[in-house]
Amino acid sequence: MKIDLNSDMGEGFGPYRLCDDDAMMGIVSSANIACGFHGGDPDTMARMVRLAKANGVGIGAHPGLPDRPGFGRREMPFQPDELRQQMLYQLGALIAIARSETMQVGHLSFHAAMGTMVERDPAVADMMMQAIVAVDRNLAVFVTAGSEIERAAKRAGLKTLALFLADRAYDARGKLVARGLPGALVKDEASVRSRVRRFLIDGTVEAIDGTVIPMQARSILVHSDTPGSLELARTVRSEIEAAGATLATAAELAS
Amino acid sequence: MKIDLNSDMGEGFGPYRLCDDDAMMGIVSSANIACGFHGGDPDTMARMVRLAKANGVGIGAHPGLPDRPGFGRREMPFQPDELRQQMLYQLGALIAIARSETMQVGHLSFHAAMGTMVERDPAVADMMMQAIVAVDRNLAVFVTAGSEIERAAKRAGLKTLALFLADRAYDARGKLVARGLPGALVKDEASVRSRVRRFLIDGTVEAIDGTVIPMQARSILVHSDTPGSLELARTVRSEIEAAGATLATAAELAS
Amino acid sequence: MKIDLNSDMGEGFGPYRLCDDDAMMGIVSSANIACGFHGGDPDTMARMVRLAKANGVGIGAHPGLPDRPGFGRREMPFQPDELRQQMLYQLGALIAIARSETMQVGHLSFHAAMGTMVERDPAVADMMMQAIVAVDRNLAVFVTAGSEIERAAKRAGLKTLALFLADRAYDARGKLVARGLPGALVKDEASVRSRVRRFLIDGTVEAIDGTVIPMQARSILVHSDTPGSLELARTVRSEIEAAGATLATAAELAS
Amino acid sequence: MKIDLNSDMGEGFGPYRLCDDDAMMGIVSSANIACGFHGGDPDTMARMVRLAKANGVGIGAHPGLPDRPGFGRREMPFQPDELRQQMLYQLGALIAIARSETMQVGHLSFHAAMGTMVERDPAVADMMMQAIVAVDRNLAVFVTAGSEIERAAKRAGLKTLALFLADRAYDARGKLVARGLPGALVKDEASVRSRVRRFLIDGTVEAIDGTVIPMQARSILVHSDTPGSLELARTVRSEIEAAGATLATAAELAS
Repeated sequence: MKIDLNSDMGEGFGPYRLCDDDAMMGIVSSANIACGFHGGDPDTMARMVRLAKANGVGIGAHPGLPDRPGFGRREMPFQPDELRQQMLYQLGALIAIARSETMQVGHLSFHAAMGTMVERDPAVADMMMQAIVAVDRNLAVFVTAGSEIERAAKRAGLKTLALFLADRAYDARGKLVARGLPGALVKDEASVRSRVRRFLIDGTVEAIDGTVIPMQARSILVHSDTPGSLELARTVRSEIEAAGATLATAAELAS
Repeated sequence: MKIDLNSDMGEGFGPYRLCDDDAMMGIVSSANIACGFHGGDPDTMARMVRLAKANGVGIGAHPGLPDRPGFGRREMPFQPDELRQQMLYQLGALIAIARSETMQVGHLSFHAAMGTMVERDPAVADMMMQAIVAVDRNLAVFVTAGSEIERAAKRAGLKTLALFLADRAYDARGKLVARGLPGALVKDEASVRSRVRRFLIDGTVEAIDGTVIPMQARSILVHSDTPGSLELARTVRSEIEAAGATLATAAELAS
Repeated sequence: MKIDLNSDMGEGFGPYRLCDDDAMMGIVSSANIACGFHGGDPDTMARMVRLAKANGVGIGAHPGLPDRPGFGRREMPFQPDELRQQMLYQLGALIAIARSETMQVGHLSFHAAMGTMVERDPAVADMMMQAIVAVDRNLAVFVTAGSEIERAAKRAGLKTLALFLADRAYDARGKLVARGLPGALVKDEASVRSRVRRFLIDGTVEAIDGTVIPMQARSILVHSDTPGSLELARTVRSEIEAAGATLATAAELAS
Repeated sequence: MKIDLNSDMGEGFGPYRLCDDDAMMGIVSSANIACGFHGGDPDTMARMVRLAKANGVGIGAHPGLPDRPGFGRREMPFQPDELRQQMLYQLGALIAIARSETMQVGHLSFHAAMGTMVERDPAVADMMMQAIVAVDRNLAVFVTAGSEIERAAKRAGLKTLALFLADRAYDARGKLVARGLPGALVKDEASVRSRVRRFLIDGTVEAIDGTVIPMQARSILVHSDTPGSLELARTVRSEIEAAGATLATAAELAS
């Protein structure tokens, strides 16, 4: 069994760091690189691409809303066409930087509120997927299984890869429990470890209400911007290896 | 005889306008589109690409320093590698937006201080040209004849197109008279008209000291950010047509 | 009778201009100076303060949301406390620049969406007014008669001055017709002229449905960011003078 | 003997942190608060002011160049008048936020390249000091003993307080060894401890070449943006207390 382990990276810029990107790049198989709007900047992007290359890690664009102080987590009053241009701008920027390092962008993963805004409206999701197709029809899109983004990507003929968030709680319908709610973040190592094991062996996850639900995913996302994230990522990786699975990049696994 | 007429465009953003881009796009054959650093933003870039498409105008990237208040005209203490990443970021962003409108970016023209910084150091110029090649080896680069950028572009195997600035004074060695100096800007219509005529017929220009020097160029740049720029552009175009020359895009003429 | 004529000013920055501020400063009695968030920057602010001083014009802070591309016209997801800090930051910045030119900030006028967000919630309005009091209890606040901001300012012990917008339509209840709706902007000179005359002589305005309603105001706001705004401002001023009224600054008239 | 212990604070913003400001505020007697240009933002500024108030810490403005990616450490091509407006803008912003929390800004400390640019030219230093006087003639200015800024502050009638940087090397003339040079940063606790002791007891410091030079200062600056800065600050504080000195705010000690 092959599985992807990925994280959002390069979300700092200048003197600011949210994650030990150098260490994290040695753990994951794919990196979602911030593109200068909610985090990152051209120099950091190039540094991430070089790190990924040195570590044999696949790279993807991680576009977000132009809101550094809010870290792209607040919805903002952009029109669908503006959202589309913002996504294209960031995706193209990373592609050019990647090419200059003889690397290829293999996937795209929406950041926070940009993803929420795209998910809400099928017409917006379609517009975004068609824009991605126009840039590179071989790009894979990270999705939640059963989401509007997944359906829109399929409609547009794009490959997708479903994510399992090892450190976030799900409700009984398989939706993420919102960040603000109690229990939304799974922080202790033992819980993360058992969740990953259950996911890898049974393809299920225990929802916040105790229900066991199916988790159709080929990729595990670990957060990079929380204390202890590096240790958590190492835990997840060791569970993957203990289960006899092999790491592969998002681009290799998407279908 | 074929000649390109181009202008820097989309340098406003949000409520801010420097130029009547809609009107200017009906006059030029190529547009150098600002890429969100010294001017422009993703939405404006998409608007420019659509306008260019509707008018049969060729498009190019016009990357600048990240300095809106200084409009990219002040040199800033960026390292060569940072400059390279900034250029790549902007170029890639425009390419993606252009593709989503089924348009292709055909050329690149450095804006103001970014160009000055690249021109100064052959190693930096080489680094920049190799980065452009990595993104798209068919891109043409706007140059001043005899410049370091021209030589570096040739070394990298890139096509170039030399510019004649109809509304800027040259010294006897063929260098632009610096913006701050007296007589640097040629503002009256009659002078611009006679300069364009002389250039088209004789391939020469009268330098600021009265010397007549050769002007090897296949492209005329008209400014868009000065009062009366639209009228000036119309004047230049009518002279081109009066001389029996035909307009062509930068990408068509570069070699 | 004394009346104030004011306009939003210094909303450009760097190479960008929305208004001929030099000319406008010769027409108004008070200037609402943009403070670097939706428009303006420190240098432009100092230039406005100097121009106001040279023209005997009163100055006020015109704080807005940190959104240049949207010109502060889009509501954004800021918490009340963030809004308060943003307002204080801008107000304090202008006060310091004004002092360095031996000028005193006499009033405050919320820009666009910041005003809308403050108006909506009495608790937010109170929080803002108390913050203004903490900075300078002698500041006057521009208000719409009957608004929440007016009531909150009064509760906080601040002086207010009600505005009449000569170039915007009102509905029968005295509320501004929203910008997007037909007829919201009154553009022709004759209409503006007759509206100003009726306001000065009868203290009334004809609402968009033809109803004549009272307009309790001692101050007329003319826009500066629309084509023809300078001519409109001159028209309003000439009507004020024709009616025998005298211009006075906002700070002089507020109560 | 009374001495001030201070640090640059609130230099993060949004999700970005450079320092554990909450912990540091429990150690220092004065805080130099970033004002939104090189670091910080309105919300962070208010949080710092509240923290300072809760901890009985004196507050000062820490204005820098508008360059987040470069953290205000790169000189930039601003004219003296622009520098002045940038400083005033930031100082005023903090004063207003402080007032809304019933706190008073007591001092000003230039950040990095802004300080270097002011120090270089007596005319610029004079212009800056006169601008500070215009805002509040009771403000104290942090200086290096023997610097141009100290002389200019004295000429303007401002109080000053000389700084000793416990974790930076000095040359034999009492100038700071530039950041990039070997040995410029003193990182080990024992060295910092002995330097502070020598300074407190003898009023001297051992320069990088072994010379012992006088260090006329009443204030010790500890950096906050380096790993281990919190421990270093605690070390310095314990040395101060061990030497029998009492902490006091910059405003209390300046003369």
